[in-house]
Amino acid sequence: MKIEKPKGTRDFYPEDMAWQNYITDAWRRVSIRHGFEEVDGPIFEKLDLYKVKSGDGIVSELFSFRRENGSTDFALRPEFTPTLARMVADRANSLPKPIKWFTIPNLCRAERPQRGRLREFLQWNVDLLGLESELADAETILVAIDFLSELGVTPEHVRVKISHRDVVKNILITLGVPEDKILDAFNLLDRRDKMESEDFEKAAMALGLDEHRVQRFQEACRSRYRTGSLGSLCKAIGMPETDVKELQELDDKLHDLGIAEWCEYDLGIVRGLAYYTGVVYEIHESSGAERALAGGGRYDNLINLFGGPKTPAVGFGMGDVVLSNLLRDKGLIPDHIGHRPDIYVLAVSDLGAKKVLPLVADLRAKGLHARFSYKTTKNMGRLLKEAVGASSRYALILDDAPESGQLKNLDTQEQVEVRLDEVAKTLHDAV
Amino acid sequence: MKIEKPKGTRDFYPEDMAWQNYITDAWRRVSIRHGFEEVDGPIFEKLDLYKVKSGDGIVSELFSFRRENGSTDFALRPEFTPTLARMVADRANSLPKPIKWFTIPNLCRAERPQRGRLREFLQWNVDLLGLESELADAETILVAIDFLSELGVTPEHVRVKISHRDVVKNILITLGVPEDKILDAFNLLDRRDKMESEDFEKAAMALGLDEHRVQRFQEACRSRYRTGSLGSLCKAIGMPETDVKELQELDDKLHDLGIAEWCEYDLGIVRGLAYYTGVVYEIHESSGAERALAGGGRYDNLINLFGGPKTPAVGFGMGDVVLSNLLRDKGLIPDHIGHRPDIYVLAVSDLGAKKVLPLVADLRAKGLHARFSYKTTKNMGRLLKEAVGASSRYALILDDAPESGQLKNLDTQEQVEVRLDEVAKTLHDAV
Repeated sequence: MKIEKPKGTRDFYPEDMAWQNYITDAWRRVSIRHGFEEVDGPIFEKLDLYKVKSGDGIVSELFSFRRENGSTDFALRPEFTPTLARMVADRANSLPKPIKWFTIPNLCRAERPQRGRLREFLQWNVDLLGLESELADAETILVAIDFLSELGVTPEHVRVKISHRDVVKNILITLGVPEDKILDAFNLLDRRDKMESEDFEKAAMALGLDEHRVQRFQEACRSRYRTGSLGSLCKAIGMPETDVKELQELDDKLHDLGIAEWCEYDLGIVRGLAYYTGVVYEIHESSGAERALAGGGRYDNLINLFGGPKTPAVGFGMGDVVLSNLLRDKGLIPDHIGHRPDIYVLAVSDLGAKKVLPLVADLRAKGLHARFSYKTTKNMGRLLKEAVGASSRYALILDDAPESGQLKNLDTQEQVEVRLDEVAKTLHDAV
Repeated sequence: MKIEKPKGTRDFYPEDMAWQNYITDAWRRVSIRHGFEEVDGPIFEKLDLYKVKSGDGIVSELFSFRRENGSTDFALRPEFTPTLARMVADRANSLPKPIKWFTIPNLCRAERPQRGRLREFLQWNVDLLGLESELADAETILVAIDFLSELGVTPEHVRVKISHRDVVKNILITLGVPEDKILDAFNLLDRRDKMESEDFEKAAMALGLDEHRVQRFQEACRSRYRTGSLGSLCKAIGMPETDVKELQELDDKLHDLGIAEWCEYDLGIVRGLAYYTGVVYEIHESSGAERALAGGGRYDNLINLFGGPKTPAVGFGMGDVVLSNLLRDKGLIPDHIGHRPDIYVLAVSDLGAKKVLPLVADLRAKGLHARFSYKTTKNMGRLLKEAVGASSRYALILDDAPESGQLKNLDTQEQVEVRLDEVAKTLHDAV
């Protein structure tokens, strides 16, 4: 009787899990050193929670369910932000500000599985709430860059593409897009890389743009500007510099934090979700061929929408699937990512064998990663091979000597005699 | 607009998450040092996977769902063992033996929430497959005890109650329970602590036991025997010692591993699930007042049932909810379980303020947990109070001095002048 796992989900065998932990450990480690605290919520929520900010349209992308004889619809979480907004709104008055939270939830979306997109995946979320200053936006970008940098990614591999919804909105209005079509235009912009250019032009015209203006719209989306050059951007789009004040403040902070070289302005970035209110950004592999590595921005109205007080907020999400593709494609895979045993206890005589279990139990209780061979062989060569195969740092060879054994460093091949009651101390000093 | 979280689920605010991580970090750390490797699987599986070993009866306890226009039923995982069996069966020939796996899945059950039982919870699973010897059973018990011991639990706090399905079955058959009612009798035994004694007697009689035999049945279930005293157990239940051969071998291993004092034999333990085949055990708080902390046993037929070769297997699960109750009730809560910042960078002048962001970004990139105050105050007392409030190890005070600051150890109050480009090195040496 064979039953397959669900389409678009993954089994994590030890080697897969070691890779997953390599990423999640780094997410966690970097978040913590940037002063973010970990949170989490339920794997499923009431379906209504996801309708608050995304409307009914999101329902078809969710795994939703209802208990037999129940009256409430639930859904597996497709994103963490609604849960975060609910949690912040619930304790808005008692939480110290700014709120700096991160989380590493598994998320489920009922989409067609394809490269970079699965039905269940992990997503690192970093959010900073309660701070008006663009320092908040800059700090979320900083933690993303520090993480990528920690794993060997460089500014040549990726670009942080920054935009601002109000700036794009101003351009669109100048070009003649009516106020009530702005969200439609954002959605169109967000999907433009996945569309044929004919379809894009047709859709743009439906928003009220003539052929000439579609052209200018396209140009505005395609142009990129280095950090420190917002003046040129304003000149190119015919906008006074006072209209990009928030981007200028962000620009200053990116320089202060030493990460300006990773970033550029790209007015084609708007993010699809309705709730973003200001700065938005995405991190892309430099060639632009892959899905975004991460995406985020300001959502200053969301806590309010979930019943809390108006609260400035900014954050991003980074999934594990596109990230893993990037690290593999760029050859950024470390040689060893599992856990090395500290010691392998090996018996080469029957008397030695009697000492294995008490010793191993004692070493483990003292915090050492201790293994032994389950084979019945007393052949030292075969036993050592097993220890080396498991990447153990040391082997302890037990023979008929009543109170000592041979401790062999498997990296250097050095071997010393050691009293059995001093093995733990010797290893603690050495590893 | 307020939407509550689903009944029986939990939000993990930073202090809750720190506690959760305190437990999961210890589960992971102890598993690894006992030579177990981490695995995981999908949060949902095909519903049929859960019917293989538990029949249709389990469906009402599951959160199950079907995609609109889809034909497959899915369910949130209520336990990990079916996923593990599927994964092992899939790669039965290529996986090196013995297989030593652990996992820390979140599980979902559609039960009525009550003390010790939620609708979503974490469960530590430890499984050892491919080893016939009772050493396998003993090693899974060892890792559970080493974990409890690591968190301050002692043999006075808990008992590991061990039984064997064949031994209990023999008693039941001797008392007159027909072969085809044995599983019903196991289920009855498993539920006896939650039943009125009258109901228990009535149910026992329905299995073919008269009043006198119900009495003897009860006695057999209530008696407990210390490790090392299987002879007395055999005498009491009128069974030759050859019939408890496997328990005797387990007993020897428990002594070898130094954990016999934590364990006792309790023939009232049978576990409710149909798939256990030999040794079964549960860990209980000593008074017996709470739900089991952990439960497990042999399931030598399960991999076979999932399409793999016949494979000896043993494992247990330990949930986070009952465990947390135990640790709280016994006062086993450490003083500090969060992450202490290494350093808080504080500016007491405008010139100092300009140096904060570049320095903080640099310290974080060098692996240090560095924070700063988001307040605009330059009042040293207030700033230091914030750093102390966050449990920071050090504070760095920046004034108009161009290339240095005052580094203050917040534990000892010692303060030294330090060059800004040497802060990272000084801290790395110190923390």
